[in-house]
Amino acid sequence: MFERLKAARDASAQKTELKRMLADCDELIRERGQSVSVGIATRVIARFNKMDAAARAEFYDQLASRYNPNLDEIDEALDAYRKFQTAEHLVRLVKSSEPPRQELLRRINRAPSGTGIVVRMRQEILARMKSNPQLSAADADFEHLLSSWFNPGFLELKKLDWTSPAHLLEQVIQHEAVHAIDGWSDLRRRLEPDRRLFAYFHPALPGEPLIFVEVALVAEMPKAVGPLLDRSKNPNLNKKDYKVAAFYSISNCQPGLKGIHLGNFLIKRVAEDLKNEFPTIKTFCTLSPIPSLADFLAKGPSWDERYFTTRQIESFDQDVVRMQNKWQAFAKSGAHDDTEDIKAVTRLCAAYLAQTSSDESRRCDPVARFHLNNGAVLDRINVMADASAKGLRQSFGLMVNYRYELDAVEENHERFARGEVACSSVVKSQIKT
Amino acid sequence: MFERLKAARDASAQKTELKRMLADCDELIRERGQSVSVGIATRVIARFNKMDAAARAEFYDQLASRYNPNLDEIDEALDAYRKFQTAEHLVRLVKSSEPPRQELLRRINRAPSGTGIVVRMRQEILARMKSNPQLSAADADFEHLLSSWFNPGFLELKKLDWTSPAHLLEQVIQHEAVHAIDGWSDLRRRLEPDRRLFAYFHPALPGEPLIFVEVALVAEMPKAVGPLLDRSKNPNLNKKDYKVAAFYSISNCQPGLKGIHLGNFLIKRVAEDLKNEFPTIKTFCTLSPIPSLADFLAKGPSWDERYFTTRQIESFDQDVVRMQNKWQAFAKSGAHDDTEDIKAVTRLCAAYLAQTSSDESRRCDPVARFHLNNGAVLDRINVMADASAKGLRQSFGLMVNYRYELDAVEENHERFARGEVACSSVVKSQIKT
Amino acid sequence: MFERLKAARDASAQKTELKRMLADCDELIRERGQSVSVGIATRVIARFNKMDAAARAEFYDQLASRYNPNLDEIDEALDAYRKFQTAEHLVRLVKSSEPPRQELLRRINRAPSGTGIVVRMRQEILARMKSNPQLSAADADFEHLLSSWFNPGFLELKKLDWTSPAHLLEQVIQHEAVHAIDGWSDLRRRLEPDRRLFAYFHPALPGEPLIFVEVALVAEMPKAVGPLLDRSKNPNLNKKDYKVAAFYSISNCQPGLKGIHLGNFLIKRVAEDLKNEFPTIKTFCTLSPIPSLADFLAKGPSWDERYFTTRQIESFDQDVVRMQNKWQAFAKSGAHDDTEDIKAVTRLCAAYLAQTSSDESRRCDPVARFHLNNGAVLDRINVMADASAKGLRQSFGLMVNYRYELDAVEENHERFARGEVACSSVVKSQIKT
Amino acid sequence: MFERLKAARDASAQKTELKRMLADCDELIRERGQSVSVGIATRVIARFNKMDAAARAEFYDQLASRYNPNLDEIDEALDAYRKFQTAEHLVRLVKSSEPPRQELLRRINRAPSGTGIVVRMRQEILARMKSNPQLSAADADFEHLLSSWFNPGFLELKKLDWTSPAHLLEQVIQHEAVHAIDGWSDLRRRLEPDRRLFAYFHPALPGEPLIFVEVALVAEMPKAVGPLLDRSKNPNLNKKDYKVAAFYSISNCQPGLKGIHLGNFLIKRVAEDLKNEFPTIKTFCTLSPIPSLADFLAKGPSWDERYFTTRQIESFDQDVVRMQNKWQAFAKSGAHDDTEDIKAVTRLCAAYLAQTSSDESRRCDPVARFHLNNGAVLDRINVMADASAKGLRQSFGLMVNYRYELDAVEENHERFARGEVACSSVVKSQIKT
Repeated sequence: MFERLKAARDASAQKTELKRMLADCDELIRERGQSVSVGIATRVIARFNKMDAAARAEFYDQLASRYNPNLDEIDEALDAYRKFQTAEHLVRLVKSSEPPRQELLRRINRAPSGTGIVVRMRQEILARMKSNPQLSAADADFEHLLSSWFNPGFLELKKLDWTSPAHLLEQVIQHEAVHAIDGWSDLRRRLEPDRRLFAYFHPALPGEPLIFVEVALVAEMPKAVGPLLDRSKNPNLNKKDYKVAAFYSISNCQPGLKGIHLGNFLIKRVAEDLKNEFPTIKTFCTLSPIPSLADFLAKGPSWDERYFTTRQIESFDQDVVRMQNKWQAFAKSGAHDDTEDIKAVTRLCAAYLAQTSSDESRRCDPVARFHLNNGAVLDRINVMADASAKGLRQSFGLMVNYRYELDAVEENHERFARGEVACSSVVKSQIKT
Repeated sequence: MFERLKAARDASAQKTELKRMLADCDELIRERGQSVSVGIATRVIARFNKMDAAARAEFYDQLASRYNPNLDEIDEALDAYRKFQTAEHLVRLVKSSEPPRQELLRRINRAPSGTGIVVRMRQEILARMKSNPQLSAADADFEHLLSSWFNPGFLELKKLDWTSPAHLLEQVIQHEAVHAIDGWSDLRRRLEPDRRLFAYFHPALPGEPLIFVEVALVAEMPKAVGPLLDRSKNPNLNKKDYKVAAFYSISNCQPGLKGIHLGNFLIKRVAEDLKNEFPTIKTFCTLSPIPSLADFLAKGPSWDERYFTTRQIESFDQDVVRMQNKWQAFAKSGAHDDTEDIKAVTRLCAAYLAQTSSDESRRCDPVARFHLNNGAVLDRINVMADASAKGLRQSFGLMVNYRYELDAVEENHERFARGEVACSSVVKSQIKT
Repeated sequence: MFERLKAARDASAQKTELKRMLADCDELIRERGQSVSVGIATRVIARFNKMDAAARAEFYDQLASRYNPNLDEIDEALDAYRKFQTAEHLVRLVKSSEPPRQELLRRINRAPSGTGIVVRMRQEILARMKSNPQLSAADADFEHLLSSWFNPGFLELKKLDWTSPAHLLEQVIQHEAVHAIDGWSDLRRRLEPDRRLFAYFHPALPGEPLIFVEVALVAEMPKAVGPLLDRSKNPNLNKKDYKVAAFYSISNCQPGLKGIHLGNFLIKRVAEDLKNEFPTIKTFCTLSPIPSLADFLAKGPSWDERYFTTRQIESFDQDVVRMQNKWQAFAKSGAHDDTEDIKAVTRLCAAYLAQTSSDESRRCDPVARFHLNNGAVLDRINVMADASAKGLRQSFGLMVNYRYELDAVEENHERFARGEVACSSVVKSQIKT
Repeated sequence: MFERLKAARDASAQKTELKRMLADCDELIRERGQSVSVGIATRVIARFNKMDAAARAEFYDQLASRYNPNLDEIDEALDAYRKFQTAEHLVRLVKSSEPPRQELLRRINRAPSGTGIVVRMRQEILARMKSNPQLSAADADFEHLLSSWFNPGFLELKKLDWTSPAHLLEQVIQHEAVHAIDGWSDLRRRLEPDRRLFAYFHPALPGEPLIFVEVALVAEMPKAVGPLLDRSKNPNLNKKDYKVAAFYSISNCQPGLKGIHLGNFLIKRVAEDLKNEFPTIKTFCTLSPIPSLADFLAKGPSWDERYFTTRQIESFDQDVVRMQNKWQAFAKSGAHDDTEDIKAVTRLCAAYLAQTSSDESRRCDPVARFHLNNGAVLDRINVMADASAKGLRQSFGLMVNYRYELDAVEENHERFARGEVACSSVVKSQIKT
C-alpha cells in the first residue's frame, strides 16, 4: 500500500522534474548572455542526473521533436538569399536551418562535466533508437557535434605502462573487448617493455580513455594470439629484435562516441611514433579476429560477382558443400586435422574477406572493412590463431594479419573506395582456382 | 630587371600554389576516409604556410564564394521533409543547408597545428572584411566553429606567477592591452602574492594564452590604478587583509577569436576560485577604463529618453555647456582642481554609463556593456584614477568600479537585457538632479 | 662432470672478480679527482652486481677488516692536538680516526644507482651479522652514513591513492607488514577517500617507497581492525564526520635501512598534514598490535618494581595464576566469553605495556616502545580487536590505541626518557587494584 | 638618547637569544628521540634567523670551540681498541673522535629548511675565517657533511630554456659570474636552440640552482666569446651543423658550497648527455678565461724548472723583457697590432698554463687547474677572444680552449696528478724554442 503510494509520488516528482528540465532547456536556447547560460546549463545537468530511465526516455523523445528548425523561416531565408545573394542572407539561411537542438547541446557542453553528459545522453539515445527510429534526427545532431569536438587535434595520446595511474589501468581491464584481460597480473604482461598500450584522451574527460590499442613488438608477423598474451613468457628486451609492430587488440571505451572514428587516427599515429622510436621496425600489421566469419559460412554464403569469376565462385561453392556438416565440429575444436578441410576453410575465409566492400549498405566483416578502408592490405589468414571458445565460435580459430604499409595506405584506401581490395600474393593465390 | 623577373616568377608560383590549394580543399571536402583526410589537411596547411598575402587574399575570396550550400538541394530536401516529416528527411535538410566550408574547416582542424591555422585564417579574414563584406559569410562559419571548439568546458585555467614558464610570461607582457607592462620587473609586481594573473589555454594551442585577467587582492575597492601597479610598494602578505578582489585588467591574446566571449567565463570562474581560497574576500569588482568617454562628451553627447527624465537631460546639457571649452585641458591634466567641474564631469560620465544598452546596434562604452551584460553593478566613478596619457585622453583620468555580486549577476543580467542598468545608490544620486 | 668443471671455473672467476673489486676499492679511496672517482665507483658497482653470494660474503669480511683507521696516526694526531690545540691539528685528528670505509661508501654513493647499492650492501651485511659479529664495525659506518643521507629533510612525502602509478601500489601490496593486502581490490579499499596512505621517497631511489603508513579517517577511535579493512563497507564521503585519524598500519620497505628511524617523522608529518586538511579531526591515534604479548604472558611474566607497588604485583600474579591453563585456548579463539577472564587479560596487557622502558637493554613490546618514545599516550586496550590467526596467536586478539596529542608529544617523550609511561585514566584504573 | 637606549635593549635581547640558542644546541645534541629533535632544530633555526651579525659571529666562535671531541674519551677508546681489537671498541673509538658539531649540523639539517640554513652558516663562517682562523675546525665539519649531502647522486640535472620558470632564470641572470647577462633579452640568446644551459639542483633546495654551465653548439671550436653572446645573430637551427659543444661559462650560485666540487661532475654529465642527443658532436671544449694571467706576467713571472729546459726559460725571460713596459697598454686595448708582441704574449701565456700544477700549495691559474685536473687538454690560446674591460684587464683579451676527450679524461687526470700537463701539439710548439 505504502509502496504504491511512494511509487506514485516518485512518478509525479519525475514528471515535474521533466517539465522543469524542458523549461530550462527552452530558456537555455533563448539566453543570450554566455556566462549566464552556464548557470542554466549546470541546472539542466543537475536535473538530468536526478531523472530516472522513464523520464529520460520522455526527455529524449521531446529532444527529437521539440527543437527542430522552423520550416517557414528556412523557406523565407532561402527566397531572400536567392533574390539578393548577399553574405547576410546566406548567414540567415544557414542559421535558420540548423536545429536549435545543436545550440542546446553546445550550451550544455559549456558547463562543468557537460561533455560527459552529452556523451552519456547519446549512449542512451542509441540504445533506444531501434524502438524509436524518430530519435535518429536527434542522434544526427549529437554525432555531428561530438565528431567536431572529439577530433584528433584535440585528443591527447598517452602511452600506458606499469607506471601509469591505477585508475586508468583499471579501465583498460574493464573495456578490453577483443582478448579479455584476466586481472592485474594478466594486464602486466601487456605492459612489459616489448608490449605497448596507447590510449586517446579528451581534455574534458580527463580520467577516461576513449579508445586504446595494444601492440606487440616482435621479430615476425604473429601467427597466433596465444603466445602474445602468454604470461609465462619473459619479455624480449633486445630492441634490435623488434622487426614487427603487431596491433593485436583495439577497444572502444565510450559507447556514446559510436561512429566517431578514432581508431584509424590512433593506429596511424601509433605506427608513426613507433617507427620513430624503433628504426628497425619495418612492418606494421594487425592480428585481427573475423567476428562474422562463422555466421557467414554456416548460414550459406553468397558470393559477389563483381569480385570473382564464375569459375572461382563454383569452386567456392564446392568447398561450401564439402564443409557443410562440419561447421559445428569446427566451431568446437577448430581447423587442425584434415589438411584438405583446412585448405577449404582458409580459402573460403580469404574469399569472404576479399569481397569486403566499402559500400556500407552491403554486409561485410566489420573488422575487415575497418582496416581495408584505412588502407591496410589483407596479408595472411592464420589457422588456429585464436583457440579461445569465442575465437572458435566466431571464426573456427582463424585470424587475419592486415598489414599497414605507411607509404601506401592513402592509395590503398582510394582503391578500396573504388571497389578494389588490396590482397597479398599469398591470399590472391589462395582464392585463385 | 632581374628583380622584376623574379617577382613575376614568384607571382606565378603563388598562383600555382593557390590553384593546388583549392584543388586540395575540394578533395578534402569530398574525402570519406577519415584518417586519409588528415594527410590531405596536412598538405593544405603546408601550402597555406607558403602562400603570400596576395595569394591568401584570393584564397579567402574563394573560400567565401566556392563552398556555399546548394540551394536546389535545400529546396528539394525542404519539400521532402514537409511532405514526409521523417527523421531521415530532416537530417538531409540540415545537411544540405550547412555550407561545405564548415566541413572543410573541421577537417583542417584535425591535422597537427590545424587549430592554430584556422584561428590564423580568421584573423586575416577579419582584417579584410571591411574592404570585402562578402567575406562575412565565411567569417560566420569560422565564428560558429571556433565558438564550439573554444567553449569553456574545453579550456584550462592556469594561474601564472613568477614560477611560470618565461615564454608564457613574455606573451603576457606583449598582449597586456589595458595597462602596458614595462618589462620583466614591471611584470613581477603583478605576480606578487597579493596579485593574481589567470589565463585560459586551449589544449590544441598549448603554449598560447587566449585571454588573461589581472587581479589585485586589497583591503578596499581601489580608487586609482597607480598604486596597484606601483613597483616600489611591497606586497601585502597578510591574507587576512584581503577583503576585495579587484580585476584591473583583462586582455585578449588571439585576434582570431574575436566574438568568442571568453572574458565573462574567465571573470566568474576566477571570482569563484578566489572566493574559495580567501573566505575573507567578500567584494569582487573591477577597476575599468571608459575608452569611449572623451569621444562621447567632446563630440556633443546625446541622451536617451528611455533612461532619463526631461529634467535630468536638461541638467546634463547644462553641464555639457559648462564644460564646453574645457575638454582639451581636461584631456591633458585631468579633473583635479575645480570642484564644480569635477562634479559635472563625474555626473556626465555616470549618466553616459547609466544609459548603456544591451542592444548592440546602439553606441555605448564597450567595457561598460561587457560588464553590465555580465551582471555587474555600476558601482563607483573614480576621479583621477588613471593619470597616464592614455587614461587622460580617453576619459579625463576617470575610471569605474563595476561590482560583481556573485548571487545577483544572473538577475542583473536579465534586467540589463530588458533595458535596465544596475547602479549603486551613489551613482544614482550623482545622476539625479 | 662438466657441471663440476663449470662450477670450478665459475668459482675461480668469482675470486678474480673479488680481487679486482678490492683493488678498485683501494684505488677509489686514494683517488683525489672527484669526477674520475665516479668512473671507478661505476666499475665497482658493475663488479658488485656480477658477484655471487660467496664472493660478496668474502667482500664484506674484507670491508670490515681492511678499511679501519690507522691507530698510530690517531695517536700521533691526538698528541699533536693536545700540545698545540689548533684547528689544523683538530681537523687532522678527526680525519685520522674516521674509518676510510666511510669515504669509500661516500664515493660509491656518487655513481649512478650508488645509493641503491649501498642500501643493498647493508641489507646483506645485516643478514650475516649474527654469524659474523665483526661485521658490526662496517655496519656502524653504513648506519652512520645512511642516517645522514636519509634524513627527513631530503625525503619526499607522497600521498598514494587509486590514481597513483601501478608499480608503486604493487610495492605497497608486497611490503605491507601488519595487515596483509590480498590483491588489488583489497588495496583499493585502503585508498578510498576516507582512507589515506602516505609514503616517504628518497630522490636517489625514485621508484621505491621507503616506508608507508595507512590511516583511516573515522568518527570514533576504532576498537577493531576488521571494520577498517572491510571491502564491503562503502567509504564515508562526508568529511564533517571525520573526527579521528587512526594510523592502523606502518610498514618498512627497505631492510637495508634498519635503524634509520623514519617512522616517527612520518607519523608526525602526516598528522600535521591531516590536521591542516581536516580541521574537524582532533584525535590522532593508532590501532596497534602487541606482537610480544602472548610470548610475555604465556612464558611466565615478570613485573618491574620501579613501575608498580607490591600490592599491584601480587594482584597481577593472581591473574596470571587464574589464566595459567587458558592461554592456548585464548590464542585460538580470543577473549570473548568469560567476563572475569577478559578483565584479567586486559589488566595484564595494560600492566605489561605500562612497564615499557626506554632503556633498550630491557625487553619490552617493540611497538609500544616505538609509540611511547614518540610521545604518544597508552590510551585504550581493545578486546577482540584483531581476530585474524596472527592477531590471536600474538596477543589473544588484543590491540592498543596509542594517542598522539600533538602539543604534548615532546613532554611525553621526555617523561618516557626519564622512566615514566603516559597512560590514560582508563588504563591507569585498569592497572590499579 | 632614545636611540642609544633602544640599541642597548636590542644588544641585550641578542645576547639572551644567543644564550638560548646555545642551550638549544646543547639539548639538540643530547636528545635521543629523533622526531623530538626536529622540534628543537626548528627552534634553533628560528633563533638563528632572528640573530644579528654580531650575535652570529659569537655563535660561530662558540660553534668552533664548544663542540669538539673529548680527548680523554678518545684516549681511553684508543687503548681499549688496541687491547681488544673488537668491532664494538672500534665503533666506540670512531664515535668518540667525531666532533659533536657534526651531529649538531646533521640534526639541524633534518628540520624544514635546515639544509639551506647549514649552507648559509657556512657561507658566513667562510667570510669570517680570515680574521679568525680557529673557525676552520668548524668549517672542516661543514665541508665534510655538505660534500656528503651534495654528492652528484642526489642532485638533479635540469636543462633550463625559455620555457623554464622565471624565478629560476632570474637567478641565472644574478649568478652568471663569467660573462655578465644584461637582462632578459640577453639571457634569451643564451637559451636559443643552439645554446644550452644546464643546472644542478638539490631536492632540499628546490628553487635554487647550485651551479650552472652554458654551452654553445657550433660548427667550430670558438676563437672568441663575442660572437657566442651576440644577440643580433640568429640561432643556427640546423642540427647537422653542430660539431662542437663549447662550454663558455660555468658559475657557482652558492658561496656556502665552496670546495664542494660540482663543476667537474656537471661538465662530464652534460657532455655525455649532449653526445647522446647529437651524434654529430665530436668535440667538447671550453672557451675559458685566464683570470690570473695579467697578475702573473705583470708582476714578474717565475718559471718552474721541472716543466721547462733552461733554454726555454731563457727564451721566456727574453719575451718578458720585450714586453716589460707594454703591459698597461695591452690591458687597455689588447694584443692586436704588433705580430711579434702577440707571439710573445701568446707564448708566455702558453708557458704559464703549461706549468699548472695539481699541487694546491703552488700558485696557478685556478681555471686551468680546474680543467686540467678534470682531464682536459690545453688545446689553444686565442688572441683578442674577450674584448670586454674585464677580459683585457685580467688576461689582455686572451682566452683558452680546454678540450675534453671523453675517453682520455681519466688518463689525462692521472698524468696531471703525476705532474704532467696535457698540451696540444700547437701549444707545445708555441712553448718550444
